[in-house]
Amino acid sequence: MTAIPEAFSGVLVPVLTPFAGDLEPDVARFKRICRWLLDEGASGLAVFGTTSEGNSLTATERCRLIDQLVEAGVPARRLMPGTGACALPDAVAMTRHAVAAGAGGVLVLPPFYYKNQADEGFFAYFSEIIERVGDPRLKLYLYHFPQMSAAPITPALVERLLKTYPDTVAGLKDSSGDWDGTRRLIAAFPDLAIFPSSEVRLMEGLGLGAAGCISATANIQPGPIARLIAAHGSAEAEDWHRRISTVRGIVEAYPFITACKAIVARQTGDDAWLQTRPPLTPLDEARCNQLFAALDACGVPLEIAL
Amino acid sequence: MTAIPEAFSGVLVPVLTPFAGDLEPDVARFKRICRWLLDEGASGLAVFGTTSEGNSLTATERCRLIDQLVEAGVPARRLMPGTGACALPDAVAMTRHAVAAGAGGVLVLPPFYYKNQADEGFFAYFSEIIERVGDPRLKLYLYHFPQMSAAPITPALVERLLKTYPDTVAGLKDSSGDWDGTRRLIAAFPDLAIFPSSEVRLMEGLGLGAAGCISATANIQPGPIARLIAAHGSAEAEDWHRRISTVRGIVEAYPFITACKAIVARQTGDDAWLQTRPPLTPLDEARCNQLFAALDACGVPLEIAL
Repeated sequence: MTAIPEAFSGVLVPVLTPFAGDLEPDVARFKRICRWLLDEGASGLAVFGTTSEGNSLTATERCRLIDQLVEAGVPARRLMPGTGACALPDAVAMTRHAVAAGAGGVLVLPPFYYKNQADEGFFAYFSEIIERVGDPRLKLYLYHFPQMSAAPITPALVERLLKTYPDTVAGLKDSSGDWDGTRRLIAAFPDLAIFPSSEVRLMEGLGLGAAGCISATANIQPGPIARLIAAHGSAEAEDWHRRISTVRGIVEAYPFITACKAIVARQTGDDAWLQTRPPLTPLDEARCNQLFAALDACGVPLEIAL
Repeated sequence: MTAIPEAFSGVLVPVLTPFAGDLEPDVARFKRICRWLLDEGASGLAVFGTTSEGNSLTATERCRLIDQLVEAGVPARRLMPGTGACALPDAVAMTRHAVAAGAGGVLVLPPFYYKNQADEGFFAYFSEIIERVGDPRLKLYLYHFPQMSAAPITPALVERLLKTYPDTVAGLKDSSGDWDGTRRLIAAFPDLAIFPSSEVRLMEGLGLGAAGCISATANIQPGPIARLIAAHGSAEAEDWHRRISTVRGIVEAYPFITACKAIVARQTGDDAWLQTRPPLTPLDEARCNQLFAALDACGVPLEIAL
């Protein structure tokens, strides 16, 4: 009997991927941040998301990192790896690997090189992944991020996929930043676990029926976000909301990935965290200092202890 | 003694990739179109370009197809495979493989997922590829296609790469469609083999010092383009120019990849050519008929005999 995992909810983290000086993934630091995020209350780890520089990792690297996390004792059911790719066979291979490893779900970008394609082509892509993996344990979360992927996942496409694969299509991450669109998705698809991409919308989103959030800045404040969710509906939640919104408001004036890496490096005193893989480059010193000064001045302590 | 290949010039073709019904590359048809294009006078085969659905092929598939072409007798020095990728290790592996196979060059897209990155990050990407492959036979052609890659290759980046790797950076494909920009590049980098992406600009481009063209529609009129180049400077070239411009003008009202596939299918009577890999979908019947009617009415015969 195959165990069918529950749908994800709560705060999921698109975990920063640490790189060594030779640009290889730094497995020891990766395990460390994953364990810390779960200890802080993250419900899941959306490894290989946009914030993870996921598309700068090969399919082989992503599969190996999944195995290394599981071997290190990270519960596989807490993983929602990014397994989308421009080349369908890569997406199929990564999805199959994640499911075999026991991942609770996968977060799948549409193929993002060819622009302005028809829904039909994206349906075929997701459909081929689902059919070829052919495993009832597969829980697929659609990754809607038109600014990066240039391939929007339209409501019509969501509807068709849900109708065709009701037991597999489990949710959607909405990184569009279009809150009206997110609200419409939540209303239109009550059975779908919908995750906005910012913790600032969490209070409102939870009220509307969102499942939680998958947010870049959850890398630097997983605990406070988890506590907001736990306190949802109480006055305490308002306090957490103000606190996490303050931090998010500061960080979002910077490129998220390199700003979060800079913050982790500073808080842990470990400059290895600054390393990115091309085409990303670390945040320059002047902007780091500006960012740190703003964070220091806002009065919200960040507690990052990896 | 390692043979250093000459720079490419003339007409290069981003060869259409045929797919079987199971979405696997159709190797037999691929070899056939490659041989036909060379027989027609193509100087080189820019396999795995945008028109080739190259980014829908995995790194492993691209490497295997290079080997299969070479085994089939296609001269490796005539190949300029697309070896760019979002993940640096994929780009390195494909470039290394192409060079080892004897490819005359490689056409390298910048990593295209992360938007608005600094030149520094793209320099690091190209630099890592060149340093890691570390082979004097490597001739790298930069692939500038901001509409698709969302990562422009700026003149400053070209200059820095040329200065650092003068024996490796051999050329640039300019698919920007910004002819003033192309003219400036040709003027600024006289040692670089610059290829505009349309045969319509060939007459003017050759006069300015362009190396030739790498064009989607070279898949359907390689011979006429090669004859224009051979006749450059004579009255006959004008005739070829009018003829190829007529065809290009009609086809460019349609999505290039699926329109070219439809034309090849029709001219060869082989509907297997219609197959695409998701996210692309074949041109629908109504648009095919419209395209075919326009081509028939224009009076220019297409001679595609695979």
